[in-house]
Amino acid sequence: MSHPHPELPPPPALPSNGLRVIALGGLGEIGRNMTVFEYQGRLLIVDCGVLFPEPDQPGVDLILPDFRYLEDRLGDVEALVLTHAHEDHIGAVPYLLRERANIPLVGSRLTLALVKSKLTEHRLTPEVSEVKEGTTHSFGPFDLEFFAVNHSIPDALAVAIKTPAGVVLHTGDFKMDQLPLDGRLTDLAGFARLGGEGVDLLLSDSTNAEVPGIVRSERDIAPVLDEVFANAAQRIIVACFASHVHRVQQVLDTAAKHRRKVAFVGRSMVRNMGVARDLGYLRVPGGMLIDLRDAEEMPPGEVVLISTGSQGEPMSALSRMAGRDHPIRIAAGDTVILASSLIPGNETAVYRVINGLTRLGARVVHKESSLVHVSGHSPAGELLYVLNLVKPRNFMPVHGEWRHLRAHARLASLTGVPDDRIVIAEDGVVVDLVDGKVGISGAVDCGYVYVDGLTVGEVTESQLKDRRILGDEGFISVIMVLDSSSGKIVGGPEIHTRGSGIDNAAFSTDVLPKLIDALERAANDGVTDTHALRQLTRRVIGKWVSDNYRRRPMIIPVVVEV
Amino acid sequence: MSHPHPELPPPPALPSNGLRVIALGGLGEIGRNMTVFEYQGRLLIVDCGVLFPEPDQPGVDLILPDFRYLEDRLGDVEALVLTHAHEDHIGAVPYLLRERANIPLVGSRLTLALVKSKLTEHRLTPEVSEVKEGTTHSFGPFDLEFFAVNHSIPDALAVAIKTPAGVVLHTGDFKMDQLPLDGRLTDLAGFARLGGEGVDLLLSDSTNAEVPGIVRSERDIAPVLDEVFANAAQRIIVACFASHVHRVQQVLDTAAKHRRKVAFVGRSMVRNMGVARDLGYLRVPGGMLIDLRDAEEMPPGEVVLISTGSQGEPMSALSRMAGRDHPIRIAAGDTVILASSLIPGNETAVYRVINGLTRLGARVVHKESSLVHVSGHSPAGELLYVLNLVKPRNFMPVHGEWRHLRAHARLASLTGVPDDRIVIAEDGVVVDLVDGKVGISGAVDCGYVYVDGLTVGEVTESQLKDRRILGDEGFISVIMVLDSSSGKIVGGPEIHTRGSGIDNAAFSTDVLPKLIDALERAANDGVTDTHALRQLTRRVIGKWVSDNYRRRPMIIPVVVEV
Repeated sequence: MSHPHPELPPPPALPSNGLRVIALGGLGEIGRNMTVFEYQGRLLIVDCGVLFPEPDQPGVDLILPDFRYLEDRLGDVEALVLTHAHEDHIGAVPYLLRERANIPLVGSRLTLALVKSKLTEHRLTPEVSEVKEGTTHSFGPFDLEFFAVNHSIPDALAVAIKTPAGVVLHTGDFKMDQLPLDGRLTDLAGFARLGGEGVDLLLSDSTNAEVPGIVRSERDIAPVLDEVFANAAQRIIVACFASHVHRVQQVLDTAAKHRRKVAFVGRSMVRNMGVARDLGYLRVPGGMLIDLRDAEEMPPGEVVLISTGSQGEPMSALSRMAGRDHPIRIAAGDTVILASSLIPGNETAVYRVINGLTRLGARVVHKESSLVHVSGHSPAGELLYVLNLVKPRNFMPVHGEWRHLRAHARLASLTGVPDDRIVIAEDGVVVDLVDGKVGISGAVDCGYVYVDGLTVGEVTESQLKDRRILGDEGFISVIMVLDSSSGKIVGGPEIHTRGSGIDNAAFSTDVLPKLIDALERAANDGVTDTHALRQLTRRVIGKWVSDNYRRRPMIIPVVVEV
Repeated sequence: MSHPHPELPPPPALPSNGLRVIALGGLGEIGRNMTVFEYQGRLLIVDCGVLFPEPDQPGVDLILPDFRYLEDRLGDVEALVLTHAHEDHIGAVPYLLRERANIPLVGSRLTLALVKSKLTEHRLTPEVSEVKEGTTHSFGPFDLEFFAVNHSIPDALAVAIKTPAGVVLHTGDFKMDQLPLDGRLTDLAGFARLGGEGVDLLLSDSTNAEVPGIVRSERDIAPVLDEVFANAAQRIIVACFASHVHRVQQVLDTAAKHRRKVAFVGRSMVRNMGVARDLGYLRVPGGMLIDLRDAEEMPPGEVVLISTGSQGEPMSALSRMAGRDHPIRIAAGDTVILASSLIPGNETAVYRVINGLTRLGARVVHKESSLVHVSGHSPAGELLYVLNLVKPRNFMPVHGEWRHLRAHARLASLTGVPDDRIVIAEDGVVVDLVDGKVGISGAVDCGYVYVDGLTVGEVTESQLKDRRILGDEGFISVIMVLDSSSGKIVGGPEIHTRGSGIDNAAFSTDVLPKLIDALERAANDGVTDTHALRQLTRRVIGKWVSDNYRRRPMIIPVVVEV
């Protein structure tokens, strides 16, 4: 198995019989999936998603793939294929379209409908090209064939990319529920046929590659929901992802059985379920849907709220209900179902919501206590089927952190893919398929692009480092006024602090005299250089804080000259 | 089931036939367990642990129980019973002994040995009273009987507290492994006998009350370790909790079978395993243990390192190995086993370590991929046995967040404890057992006490709020020098920022002219009041940042008078 070296050179020119694969996101992380394929100077992109920040990326709203590699090549892009409409596959589309508005978006009916409805909010009207499973379409030199895959959103696709340099199968995200709610199975027969024709490179979803076995069927949730509904006397609130049409369908069906009305809560839930219903992906019994306003007025035992906020997002309706900051007042006898995964990193926020709701008297049912969620990604047992059916000549695990990619590579190795034809790459690593064999040929610049408020890419790693220090330790600023003609300090030093945990009184009685003394001695030695004064101040304050408090706040000396 | 009201009054005087129970920690959280029992003016404390901070408590090292309630009553304390030597049960002992050094510590042989070894580092020599299961001891009016319980550390105890006001059974932490490594079972026979005699109040461990079923045996890990060892060509590193003597024993046994030497890594691992070995709780084959230095020199295939750092602690050896900042250089073929739980909130840190090790070529085995960990706490299926055997007249779930306490209360209700005799309390809530019935009679002040660096209790909630803002948004400070005689600004405004993500150039070209203009207009209007100038500055800068960046950094205007 090849691994990227710490410092890879820029890649050489791609041979005319070669296919180049570069992930600009999605390798070494779960999120911001974006893979660029190149053949004879033309580009095809698969997915363009966002990544949600981790705790050591404070204040950041979103992380985008790094588009720099495309900067001068936007005109070469034939199409952007969207495998499905999850945020980690489509969330960065508006940002890419800012660079070139007329990149054709290729996807299934539901995928494009959800993307368009999202782009409307960004005031963008994309060029789209609707495709469906079992069909083929050509975009420049790329002949594409689409396959149905089952996932936690309907209408997801895998895509085969055929060029004279070889055939690539990109699974997108998938699992292999054998009794899916919509009867639309992952097309293993198609994978097998393609495998028989010869797949030179398989890119496959690694999210659950560490998890043994197979996934339970979405259907298995229904009896659990039924039991919870049957035992619920008062209000029922179900939180799940706003794109999980089948999960919502099961809640609607259970609500119908228990003669409850349903209201959707949360902007993206309302928007997506509207789209899914209009297109026939969601079946809503007549007269069942009501407005949240009406739901508030009805007897709690007659309604179900289907809400966003399953990840503990602090501004979501569910978080606000848990904190008693919402018109819906949670009370004893209410039931809340978190019918969703728990994305790593969100545990503290989610448990806070669960505890808050519990404290108010609600019964909270979640995936650790009941089967109210099944994953959308194939675990190891299912991934082996795909590897054995496709029999790829080369394999590249995608969509995962290192632990997932490595586990998936191991599965490929066990099914007989030679180790020198398994490539674990990272974002920006250049993988070339030449003469039927993959290899790493270099790397392109590829970093994190942070969206913070209205800015894209302006918040840097060094800003985040400052935020981490400020967040853990606070700061101490020391302000002095220097008369530049006399070279004397005529104002201050004044000490201001936030977050350091040190009392103002301690400064004035304890360290300020020391600092004044040190500054006076410096003045007597003729020091008037502001840089030297700042250094001296930082040293005196820093030593005092370290000795007395064993902490390291940011120390910011400021000399204002008058 | 009684719940605390948002605002409970201070409790009335305790009737002479009453027993009072106040948790100063451990209710509504997992950690800082500390429960105070009062009878006829005398106090008995059970446990005195620490809580580890959550992400919204940035920069904090530890959180202590709030000792304020004991402030004037330290002389009334008869004893501090320590059920076992986990940090969340003993970690705050040094801080309590600072208040009164001669509180007798009561515990089992191993518990006291580990506590004493820890207190030595704080230069404290406690008064101790060693007890063991099956024995009774009196401390003032409290007659105590101790019961063996099985947990993820040896020699753990449950304690019955008998007073004329009633009999309380406090389980401490426990599970019910029926084939424990040391043959020391949770004493269900004892619980049954006590239940037969009559238990007025049961306090029982709620950590896993939401989890259905029973726990796997510690023994079940052995074949998994054996398989991993058998397939490991190079170095093996096992990370687990530094107090998990039985887990370490199993690693030692497996290492012996595979003829590998063992080195302990990490200060607490070395210290605790030394104590456990000296007292005979850990059996180490002769010549097996080597120093880390020697392990570094040996062929990797002949050693096992047993290390701390299983929670992703950034300064631990394991984290440093993952970041290539440790003498042990992880390479392809190495195997790392995380034989531990994953405490909620630590996921990001732990996965970072796993990904780092994986990227360097190691195979990482952890609880999500293999059975290399079993919990130390009884799940619902086992808790029911205790409830049915003890048949308590009143029940109070302890050791858990709201979701755990509520789930445990539900189990008690299902086993027949009347709902009005089940009390879910929070830290500081006063629970009185009078005439054989529990009830909430009030509350005492009880907050979080933060240890940060060398200070205890000096970092406040408002400081933490400042840190959170600084950490997410950074700050902008604006400094002006005001000539107090003329009322004119003679220096500045100068703008300094850290972490706001805003360029210095943007300030000087864009908002500084606006600010100067606003200040000049204020001066023309005769405004010289520094408070008004600061308000004006905050408004101008804040609006500009909000309009142009949609962010909310902390804005700190400073007027220095000369």
